[in-house]
Amino acid sequence: MSPSTTHSRTVGDGTSAEKDREQRLRSDYPYFLRIPTRWMDNDVYGHVNNVLYYSFFDTVINQYLISQGGLDIHAGAIIGLAVETQCRFFGPIAFPQIVEAGLRVGHIGRSSVRYEIGLFVESIAPACAQGHFVHVFVDRNTRTSVPIPDALRNAMTRLVPAMNAGPQPA
Amino acid sequence: MSPSTTHSRTVGDGTSAEKDREQRLRSDYPYFLRIPTRWMDNDVYGHVNNVLYYSFFDTVINQYLISQGGLDIHAGAIIGLAVETQCRFFGPIAFPQIVEAGLRVGHIGRSSVRYEIGLFVESIAPACAQGHFVHVFVDRNTRTSVPIPDALRNAMTRLVPAMNAGPQPA
Amino acid sequence: MSPSTTHSRTVGDGTSAEKDREQRLRSDYPYFLRIPTRWMDNDVYGHVNNVLYYSFFDTVINQYLISQGGLDIHAGAIIGLAVETQCRFFGPIAFPQIVEAGLRVGHIGRSSVRYEIGLFVESIAPACAQGHFVHVFVDRNTRTSVPIPDALRNAMTRLVPAMNAGPQPA
Amino acid sequence: MSPSTTHSRTVGDGTSAEKDREQRLRSDYPYFLRIPTRWMDNDVYGHVNNVLYYSFFDTVINQYLISQGGLDIHAGAIIGLAVETQCRFFGPIAFPQIVEAGLRVGHIGRSSVRYEIGLFVESIAPACAQGHFVHVFVDRNTRTSVPIPDALRNAMTRLVPAMNAGPQPA
Repeated sequence: MSPSTTHSRTVGDGTSAEKDREQRLRSDYPYFLRIPTRWMDNDVYGHVNNVLYYSFFDTVINQYLISQGGLDIHAGAIIGLAVETQCRFFGPIAFPQIVEAGLRVGHIGRSSVRYEIGLFVESIAPACAQGHFVHVFVDRNTRTSVPIPDALRNAMTRLVPAMNAGPQPA
Repeated sequence: MSPSTTHSRTVGDGTSAEKDREQRLRSDYPYFLRIPTRWMDNDVYGHVNNVLYYSFFDTVINQYLISQGGLDIHAGAIIGLAVETQCRFFGPIAFPQIVEAGLRVGHIGRSSVRYEIGLFVESIAPACAQGHFVHVFVDRNTRTSVPIPDALRNAMTRLVPAMNAGPQPA
Repeated sequence: MSPSTTHSRTVGDGTSAEKDREQRLRSDYPYFLRIPTRWMDNDVYGHVNNVLYYSFFDTVINQYLISQGGLDIHAGAIIGLAVETQCRFFGPIAFPQIVEAGLRVGHIGRSSVRYEIGLFVESIAPACAQGHFVHVFVDRNTRTSVPIPDALRNAMTRLVPAMNAGPQPA
Repeated sequence: MSPSTTHSRTVGDGTSAEKDREQRLRSDYPYFLRIPTRWMDNDVYGHVNNVLYYSFFDTVINQYLISQGGLDIHAGAIIGLAVETQCRFFGPIAFPQIVEAGLRVGHIGRSSVRYEIGLFVESIAPACAQGHFVHVFVDRNTRTSVPIPDALRNAMTRLVPAMNAGPQPA
């Protein structure tokens, strides 16, 4: 079914759990990819189907890893598998609008990473949706977890918000 | 990207938050729909793309509401919009496997409902994935929230686990 | 956009070109696969999007080749690539209807094969759509054409209509 | 399955039937739309699934009709339904490539129109695919055919190649 049509902004109290509920702004994302909608993205209720929001997540993440981190989806020794994804829907998107997908990284572990994504449409300030996507990196053949290679880790690190990096020494 | 390939079962300590992290069983779902996979569901890593798991959620929910609750997706006065969805991936699914989508209802409010879904494949006991999907029902034209009509509410109520229905009389 | 809504039957004059324009019957297909529609298959006009008819083609063909001809889509030395596809739309399909996809084989060459497909919905006699799909089989790595292996060829041959199998003994 | 990987150019002899078999050039199309591929477009063979080529057809056609011809897909009195589509595949497309979809109009009738589409990827001259798509315009409610409105007809006419418009006066 189509996503919600209201653009409400949740007000948090600054705790960690609350932060996750806050509606982030465009300025919270260091990387953007423009993803035009397609005719068949619209469902019977006239808006882009909720399922496809995750395709926009998938696309901005992989486009970034390929272009900035050297991910080789065809022949590389490691691949990223989805472990958990989530999306909250604030407002509709409809073909032929162009989605602007904002990407940042919330946490980088040994073999997993948590991306945070916001979806916007042109000329509308609030996000239409936001969510997260957790990847675990595994060996392509054995499918057992492996440490994130440096090239990918460096690309991911560039998307971690500065405020999360803690106070800088003087 | 493809979902995770391990079938691990999280052990909870019985708290509410933990319960949501537990991997549910087939017997936890009162309703099932068989959804055959399609050739193009498989992605470059050889398994059904994570995005499409939400299409299975969408499909079992709406098929249930249409067949059991009288939802009229073409001309009905009210429609359901996605507010929040989430999925955790435990193991892969691949074409030509047939998905068995289990559905139950976790909470029914005035105008919103939370469904809980588990995806299974034939002959494998643990779930491949589980998640939730929150609908808010709105007027088709104004897109403002409306109370869930009785026919739909009754259908939803039949999917609430008995243990949630309160203490049973002696 | 949604396919045409009329169920017209073209009358041919028996020539080869005309035969291709004729609307085939259920009895013209020796193999069927049931493919349930999904919520997001419906487009903004309320019916299954025309693009997805080709997914039904893809699915019945590959499901047949895997189950009956031993095609190994993950690790086999040869793979089938689409060379040409076509579909004519006679009537609409809508979620939650179940598609019955009929499959037969029109021509088998050295490395290519032409499948003919008809899509039906339950309790409606005429086809909703029919079309063809031409595969060329190639080496997975070099992507150069190779002869169709015997196991696949035998499976395909079983779907060639009897009248195409050559002269009948007197 | 993935489309063919060879970029062969058919040589025609100038007859009408042969013309349809010729591989058209970028310069044969007066209108182009850039359509970025998405992660999940790639199938198990590593390239964009053949089915999705038709989504690119659908998207360039409707984007043109909406932006240039005033088509109102949500509330307009008339809608376009697919009657016949066809595609020939010459070479692969793979995420994250960007598709350049070329559009022209081959024939405009009273209520139907035949579009001709070519799909290209950046920096590669020959088309990856080409095909056609026939729309019939119908009343949204009765689904009976109606004459193509002037605004749409004018937009379509601008995409008819000049050579098809007949001899020019000296």
